[in-house]
Amino acid sequence: MKNMKNFHMSSEEFRKQGKQMIDWIADYYENVENYPVLSQVKPGDIKNQLPETAPDESESMDQIMSDVNSILMPGITHWQSPNFFAFFPSNSSGPSVLGDLLSSGLGVQGMLWATSPSCTELETRVLDWLVNMLQLPDKFKSTSAGGAVIQDTASSAALSSVLAARERKTNYQTNDSGSLGNLVAYVSSQTHSSLEKAIKIAGIGKNNLRLIEVDENLAMRTDLLENTIQEDLQAGLIPFFVCATVGSTSTNAIDPLPEIGQICQKYQLWMHIDAAMSGTAAICPEYRFILNGVELADSFSFNPHKWMFTNFDCNCFFVADRSVLIKTLSILPEYLKNQATESGAVFDYRDWHIQLGRRFRSLKLWFVIRNYGVNGLRYYIQEHIRIAQQFAEWVRSSSEFEVVAPAPLNLVCFAHRNGNDFNKKLLETINSAGKMYFTHTVIGGNYVLRMCIGQTNTNEEHVRKAWETIQQTANELIQKD
Amino acid sequence: MKNMKNFHMSSEEFRKQGKQMIDWIADYYENVENYPVLSQVKPGDIKNQLPETAPDESESMDQIMSDVNSILMPGITHWQSPNFFAFFPSNSSGPSVLGDLLSSGLGVQGMLWATSPSCTELETRVLDWLVNMLQLPDKFKSTSAGGAVIQDTASSAALSSVLAARERKTNYQTNDSGSLGNLVAYVSSQTHSSLEKAIKIAGIGKNNLRLIEVDENLAMRTDLLENTIQEDLQAGLIPFFVCATVGSTSTNAIDPLPEIGQICQKYQLWMHIDAAMSGTAAICPEYRFILNGVELADSFSFNPHKWMFTNFDCNCFFVADRSVLIKTLSILPEYLKNQATESGAVFDYRDWHIQLGRRFRSLKLWFVIRNYGVNGLRYYIQEHIRIAQQFAEWVRSSSEFEVVAPAPLNLVCFAHRNGNDFNKKLLETINSAGKMYFTHTVIGGNYVLRMCIGQTNTNEEHVRKAWETIQQTANELIQKD
Repeated sequence: MKNMKNFHMSSEEFRKQGKQMIDWIADYYENVENYPVLSQVKPGDIKNQLPETAPDESESMDQIMSDVNSILMPGITHWQSPNFFAFFPSNSSGPSVLGDLLSSGLGVQGMLWATSPSCTELETRVLDWLVNMLQLPDKFKSTSAGGAVIQDTASSAALSSVLAARERKTNYQTNDSGSLGNLVAYVSSQTHSSLEKAIKIAGIGKNNLRLIEVDENLAMRTDLLENTIQEDLQAGLIPFFVCATVGSTSTNAIDPLPEIGQICQKYQLWMHIDAAMSGTAAICPEYRFILNGVELADSFSFNPHKWMFTNFDCNCFFVADRSVLIKTLSILPEYLKNQATESGAVFDYRDWHIQLGRRFRSLKLWFVIRNYGVNGLRYYIQEHIRIAQQFAEWVRSSSEFEVVAPAPLNLVCFAHRNGNDFNKKLLETINSAGKMYFTHTVIGGNYVLRMCIGQTNTNEEHVRKAWETIQQTANELIQKD
Repeated sequence: MKNMKNFHMSSEEFRKQGKQMIDWIADYYENVENYPVLSQVKPGDIKNQLPETAPDESESMDQIMSDVNSILMPGITHWQSPNFFAFFPSNSSGPSVLGDLLSSGLGVQGMLWATSPSCTELETRVLDWLVNMLQLPDKFKSTSAGGAVIQDTASSAALSSVLAARERKTNYQTNDSGSLGNLVAYVSSQTHSSLEKAIKIAGIGKNNLRLIEVDENLAMRTDLLENTIQEDLQAGLIPFFVCATVGSTSTNAIDPLPEIGQICQKYQLWMHIDAAMSGTAAICPEYRFILNGVELADSFSFNPHKWMFTNFDCNCFFVADRSVLIKTLSILPEYLKNQATESGAVFDYRDWHIQLGRRFRSLKLWFVIRNYGVNGLRYYIQEHIRIAQQFAEWVRSSSEFEVVAPAPLNLVCFAHRNGNDFNKKLLETINSAGKMYFTHTVIGGNYVLRMCIGQTNTNEEHVRKAWETIQQTANELIQKD
């Protein structure tokens, strides 16, 4: 054997640097409120500080971490700040970071049961736990004809549901012959953009996606849904899929699941439920009502990486009939064949989603559920909703602001009475000051502010200060005018 | 404010548990050769040890880690063992685990430039580094009309390329009107199964995927490719896409890129190159020849998570014209609008792939390239190829075994002369003994053994022992008969 060089990090160095990194992260969380929540850099500011070519020779971790601190940190928008109220949360927690670290360390690629049985079986077990925790119907359990899988995002889960629906409706002929441009899907005008993206990807075509109008609560109008289905049938088209939303991204609107489910059964359409953020609320018995009707669904998905303290990415996708999903997405080339797969006694999760390879993502979810306990998780969800409702009360009791959409859970849409331009100015002024970060939407042509309360460490005090900042900034803007 | 409970892990506990986890991982790597490489558990063994319901009350990290050790570890197949020669490697390294840990800790969701400018700009910069490192054409750089993005896997990159090709060919009408069943794609009979999956997902249909036969080197026959294209044109179909492979999964075959590229230009087809594992070899000047012809490609992808010491998931996807990709995958609902996006001065990477949300994956890649240095990375790639060629020599000089496919890089396909049943028995016997793990493929009806050498810590001694194990086990099987 020839004389060997060594460029690998030694075990001693890994221990030293790893422990420093753990301290770095702990320090970061202790100090996260000192950073501007929304990064204040300009396009190119970060890139221009990074060399244009890779180093030929090894650089030390100390040097790299020094660049993290001086170059990268100013370009971070702090999703883990308790003053982050933008979009939906993408929250994390101690046990989640540790579970993800273990996953990185083990470096397991769980595409097949055989490539790490624990990766598949822990995932199956933890997802069965969630069926109980969310009081989902038993048909979504691995012990029934259904089952569940961890995907990266609700977008991928939505695409998987569209594909399974497409194949079930066309007797698996689209996979063979291609789309025919006659399938029609239904969502509400408030449904997340990922559904439109999925419909395009699947070759269905945006023109075959019906955006059903919503009622005063911004929920899908089922009378219009059924009318549209009937019109499409009369036109010789083939309705195949409906996505119902529990907690829309824009306003947290909840579609009427029982009515949509009955229509889906009547016309034999696949019913998918996207409960990306809000699904987590159903672990609390008093909020479980948001999922009433889920027993009629063919598939259901929610993201522990949004509001269940499990860091991105972790979407849980449940199906009532796993055979449809597997038949839709399964490919078995020779080089992946193995005894366990051939026995039929195992799940090979690569047949349950778009990708082939997969991380050991159930570890972080398992760590979180066990370390918090279901009661611990419930406590924070209840707190976040309580605080959001408190915020809504403050807004309602203000003479200058109003709540402009139902706020059933942890997202409050509100606006200053001074109109669109003022609200836009208010948002930009507050976000560029860095004390808090929130975002907007548009409802009925009106520019609307969104406060989404779900970051792991957000408590009442953070929201109280946010409300003070919003009021104070509004007053300052009015005085300047 | 009401009396608050606390179920969050404290900062002190996180520091303590995190440092223990770092030691756990370091210990694991020091001892990984003591585990059977392929897990020896039976279906259900792991799941049956896990409780059927989630705990209501918090459990300690010590308790959880105790279950990791006693329940999960027997069900791990050790991808990070230097005796892992199966499939393709999915390797990791110290700097990669640390970069991934930092990503988990920061908990950044980089869907838009604004949601963490550093997440986007570091990614752009590091991918530009790779253009230089692999000597890719400048058109793949962010400073040209092209650019690159980190995706999860080569499967998703392949799907993205199929979609962009579909839209370019149909003038973006398929996104609107759906597939029409007249587009045709071309791959070789050796192309990875993810391409067939992508063609199905995209609504093109498997019947419109031509599997072009291969030559004696298992590379695509371009005379047959052109003939097939002409036949399809004469039949009124619309050829739109070719995937060329550099290092096929089955045997590491390399398709003739220049000839395929010329055909793609002649017939205006999108040329995608899948170099999932083998692309990394091109960082070594002496192996750069494998990418000759890449200058003709519309897109190119390879996986640092396979052979570049960066843990799963990390696929790098390069496109020559980013506007096609973005136009294909872009969706801009109101709630994602922001000043930076509207300025057009930034990349919003969620428009470059299927998903909306995304991790800060460039951190681990940046850590790896900087901590190894390009010369450090080259050293191990050169070593792996040298050892694989050494292994091939040993096989060739044996009277009982033969090399059965060209072995241009780090994958050697070989077989015992005793035929299919014997080789299958040999593989299963060795894998169930646990000292090493390798897998098989089928070439021309023959069951063939694959030794893929690319795990981070694999050195000549591991491969020498593997060869001894293979020879010895074969002899024992012959004597038993």
